[in-house]
Amino acid sequence: MSYRAPVSEYQFLLQQILGYEQITATERFAEADNDLMAAILTEAGKMCDEVMAPLQRGGDLEPARLENGVLRTSPGFGDGYKAIAEGGWIGMSADPEYGGMGLPMSLTTSVNEMMSGACLSLQLAPLMSQGQIEALEHHASDALKALYLPKLISGEWAGTMNLTEPQAGSDVGALSSKAEDNGDGTYAVSGQKIFISWGDNDFTENVCHLVLARLPDGVPGTKGISLFLVPKYLPDENGNLGKANSLKVVSLEHKMGLHGSPTCVMQYDGATGWLVGKEHGGMAAMFTMMNNARLGVGGQGVGAAEGAYQHALAYALDRKQGKTPVEGGTGTIVDHADVRRMLMEMKADVYASRAIMLACAGAIDMGTATGDAEWKTRAAFLTPIAKAFGTETGIRVSEQGVQVHGGMGFIEETGAAQFYRDVRVTAIYEGTNGIQAMDLVARKMMDGGEMAHRLIDEIEEQAERARPTHPNMAEAVWQACETLREATEWLVEADMQDRFAGAVPYLMAFARVLGGHYHLAAALADKGGAREKLARFYIKRMLPQHAAYLIHAREGAAGAFALTAEELAS
Amino acid sequence: MSYRAPVSEYQFLLQQILGYEQITATERFAEADNDLMAAILTEAGKMCDEVMAPLQRGGDLEPARLENGVLRTSPGFGDGYKAIAEGGWIGMSADPEYGGMGLPMSLTTSVNEMMSGACLSLQLAPLMSQGQIEALEHHASDALKALYLPKLISGEWAGTMNLTEPQAGSDVGALSSKAEDNGDGTYAVSGQKIFISWGDNDFTENVCHLVLARLPDGVPGTKGISLFLVPKYLPDENGNLGKANSLKVVSLEHKMGLHGSPTCVMQYDGATGWLVGKEHGGMAAMFTMMNNARLGVGGQGVGAAEGAYQHALAYALDRKQGKTPVEGGTGTIVDHADVRRMLMEMKADVYASRAIMLACAGAIDMGTATGDAEWKTRAAFLTPIAKAFGTETGIRVSEQGVQVHGGMGFIEETGAAQFYRDVRVTAIYEGTNGIQAMDLVARKMMDGGEMAHRLIDEIEEQAERARPTHPNMAEAVWQACETLREATEWLVEADMQDRFAGAVPYLMAFARVLGGHYHLAAALADKGGAREKLARFYIKRMLPQHAAYLIHAREGAAGAFALTAEELAS
Repeated sequence: MSYRAPVSEYQFLLQQILGYEQITATERFAEADNDLMAAILTEAGKMCDEVMAPLQRGGDLEPARLENGVLRTSPGFGDGYKAIAEGGWIGMSADPEYGGMGLPMSLTTSVNEMMSGACLSLQLAPLMSQGQIEALEHHASDALKALYLPKLISGEWAGTMNLTEPQAGSDVGALSSKAEDNGDGTYAVSGQKIFISWGDNDFTENVCHLVLARLPDGVPGTKGISLFLVPKYLPDENGNLGKANSLKVVSLEHKMGLHGSPTCVMQYDGATGWLVGKEHGGMAAMFTMMNNARLGVGGQGVGAAEGAYQHALAYALDRKQGKTPVEGGTGTIVDHADVRRMLMEMKADVYASRAIMLACAGAIDMGTATGDAEWKTRAAFLTPIAKAFGTETGIRVSEQGVQVHGGMGFIEETGAAQFYRDVRVTAIYEGTNGIQAMDLVARKMMDGGEMAHRLIDEIEEQAERARPTHPNMAEAVWQACETLREATEWLVEADMQDRFAGAVPYLMAFARVLGGHYHLAAALADKGGAREKLARFYIKRMLPQHAAYLIHAREGAAGAFALTAEELAS
Repeated sequence: MSYRAPVSEYQFLLQQILGYEQITATERFAEADNDLMAAILTEAGKMCDEVMAPLQRGGDLEPARLENGVLRTSPGFGDGYKAIAEGGWIGMSADPEYGGMGLPMSLTTSVNEMMSGACLSLQLAPLMSQGQIEALEHHASDALKALYLPKLISGEWAGTMNLTEPQAGSDVGALSSKAEDNGDGTYAVSGQKIFISWGDNDFTENVCHLVLARLPDGVPGTKGISLFLVPKYLPDENGNLGKANSLKVVSLEHKMGLHGSPTCVMQYDGATGWLVGKEHGGMAAMFTMMNNARLGVGGQGVGAAEGAYQHALAYALDRKQGKTPVEGGTGTIVDHADVRRMLMEMKADVYASRAIMLACAGAIDMGTATGDAEWKTRAAFLTPIAKAFGTETGIRVSEQGVQVHGGMGFIEETGAAQFYRDVRVTAIYEGTNGIQAMDLVARKMMDGGEMAHRLIDEIEEQAERARPTHPNMAEAVWQACETLREATEWLVEADMQDRFAGAVPYLMAFARVLGGHYHLAAALADKGGAREKLARFYIKRMLPQHAAYLIHAREGAAGAFALTAEELAS
């Protein structure tokens, strides 16, 4: 397997499509100019290609395992993690006061995506730490920050999130883990947590768990939940590690994919923890962590799609089969129209999902730099779309990657199947794609759809600008946008159940239209070039899916609930 | 895991939608009346539920393996196979002269599908034998038939197909296996074959391989290929087994799924074989085998979809999460609109793909019973659609099945992931779905689209009949059909490369419209009932996808080939 981080794609998108210069025009990000961007992306890309990509297959073949309670990670993962840490890639966007680089999320998101394409299961480890860093920066006391952030940012320690319990998945508020005040500034945390990604490892000195639990006076539901920082080893005030905390990894899950990433059942038995944020304010702190994690998971989908695409293309350019049907063809299966169709669909969707992801990251950056509510609202609106469409793209592209390989796609040694298996979880964790879509049509539409309409206006404005040079493409995007506008108008007037029944199709339609928008931008930026041709393929052949999604989205809940449970089962 | 073969679904479809009585009105199938059908399906269903379904998980956990050259199958598979054989389910449609039941393919296809839902990896074994029986019935000498068919039909011996070689996959004509005339009525067959499903087992006395190879005077390409029957053990004229033949299983593939089914690399070293069909006539004989196998693989997709649906529904009816948003709800996640949406989509597509599959089987039966070319043409036309859409449905439904399970879907012990992994190969083997679509738009359109138009006429006729009672649904189906008609008219005038570039989208659109047709028929048959409600869901929310597919289908090859290989890689 040879993987090349698509460095020039990020540069093109950021500079020519997404207005990266607007970000570096702010005081906050003034240093992260195009030159620094190029240097950062090139350096990270090199690490992905040379260090991480070679670990991907071994992580699958030799999963992390638990030996007498001690976690052993896959071969080379310790060195891989060290390379990530030493490159500074964990704390790229973290506060420089604690050792971070303070770079825009636009760059962190690019690097996270390229690491995902190289080795998804290992990349999940720093992604978890990033979420914890973000949560601590926003919600922890100065003392906790001073103690933990430098270690997390340097990668000496790793971070995890502990939300889920067997009875409390999407419904986090149903959790039963408890915490009691020890009266000395610490708390005793007890309970069992499941699905804890990278709940332990054998390559960092310490593992710091952010654990949601309920204090004795916490009300039922999400409003009674508090967040605690619970380290594996208890540090003194200088960060020197002392005795082991009362927590352990009970077992590892046997999963469909992502074998290199240990998914742990964690047990806390009166483990010592420190409150992060306010008592009963755990959900707010958790959301800080989750929002960026959602964008990160969307990036995992895009990265896996990129990896699967490169893998399939390499196979198609090598595999000879049948007579070439095209004049001057290569004699490989890339000459076959159906293989071309698949590769073009894959490439077009990788571009579309990456553009949406980086647009979301850029909005986060502008929000951070300017404090402007509009940018923050925009980032919040784009997050569920970036997460769900990015991961959906990961699944779809890796599925086509298997298909391009023909029979060899089903055989594990080619690696095509691994992308397909690994990426499947991204549509589930950090809030299933159904939860993302419900977030979009409910919480993110509480403004009566105003943010949605501003995005739609922007898409139509660009389409108008594109009419002179690209009349057909511009018209197609404009029309799709109008259909989306009508659906949005319907949606904000609809009952919540009706919205929910069509939430996923609505989200997918929004993503399809945004994809059309960014492809059209690429056509404008690259007239007569390959990007314009790819844009034409997308806009003519893939954008039309928006219509079916929107019809579905507007049908409401009654028809979805038309069958009784008994009828569903008969 | 509890699985219930959907016996009443087959009965409903055959009797009320697909005109099964037309089949039993023929002399050939007169005995297979509704009562016998009910008895057969019930009995087979019992075997699936009680014997096969319990084997599914073990086949995944303890794959078939090779021990010092001896193949060991998964736990219980030998007993499971025996139950299939003793029930007579292998030779259901085989010639009674040789011990078969002579039943319609409509019933065999139903039973094959229910076995696939119960345990896909085991079901593949009898499916392979069925293909061999069919090929021998049509192409073998009387002596070979008398010797082999009774043993294959009883299940004492098993059959395989040996087509693929490393350099000859979709392009079978590129094979390099050789055969030489021994001068005594036998041939010496040499070469290596890959991807041989159930290439060996430890539960039948003998394994009979149908092997494609080239005689010394065979021209290059498919026209120089001959078919040979090469048994593992050489039988005397009474079927008593003698010495082992010069063939062996070299290794087993490590696959993404279907672990219970050994996928073998086979080596033939001057193995003794008998010619089936004429010299250099191997492809014709192979096509006999492959056509029914394609329908069978489509049925594997439908069966896996049924299994995944039942599995997901059971989980959704049991899993409590969050407050129920509906009055009088069950308190489980089935009350959530997005979960309902997924379950309804799954159920609606299981019905649609099953209807198409059984319509194809029914056409085969009518062709067999009447010799009428129209029925045969119809069966040939529907076969690639049944195969590709059935398997696509298997993938899509099992993917949603994973999603319904949330985090548990990614954990292997729930079994949801296994459906997803197992079924993936069905879109690849027996001709990839791309090959199916190319078959549809090329070979099956050599009549200038006449068969397609007759089906379209039929769909519109029913839509007209439905207008008085179901005006909206009828209009939607009718309009979709008109769009399909226009695309078909475009297609038959188009260059072959243009057809191929849109072949898969065209096939998917045809399937979507056929699905609408059969759902509308169900609505007519069950006014006010659950089937009408499911039909409405499908026609309003899923049928609209046809439009995007057809736009894609008509775009032609130029845009798909717009990027150079270098541009694809940059």
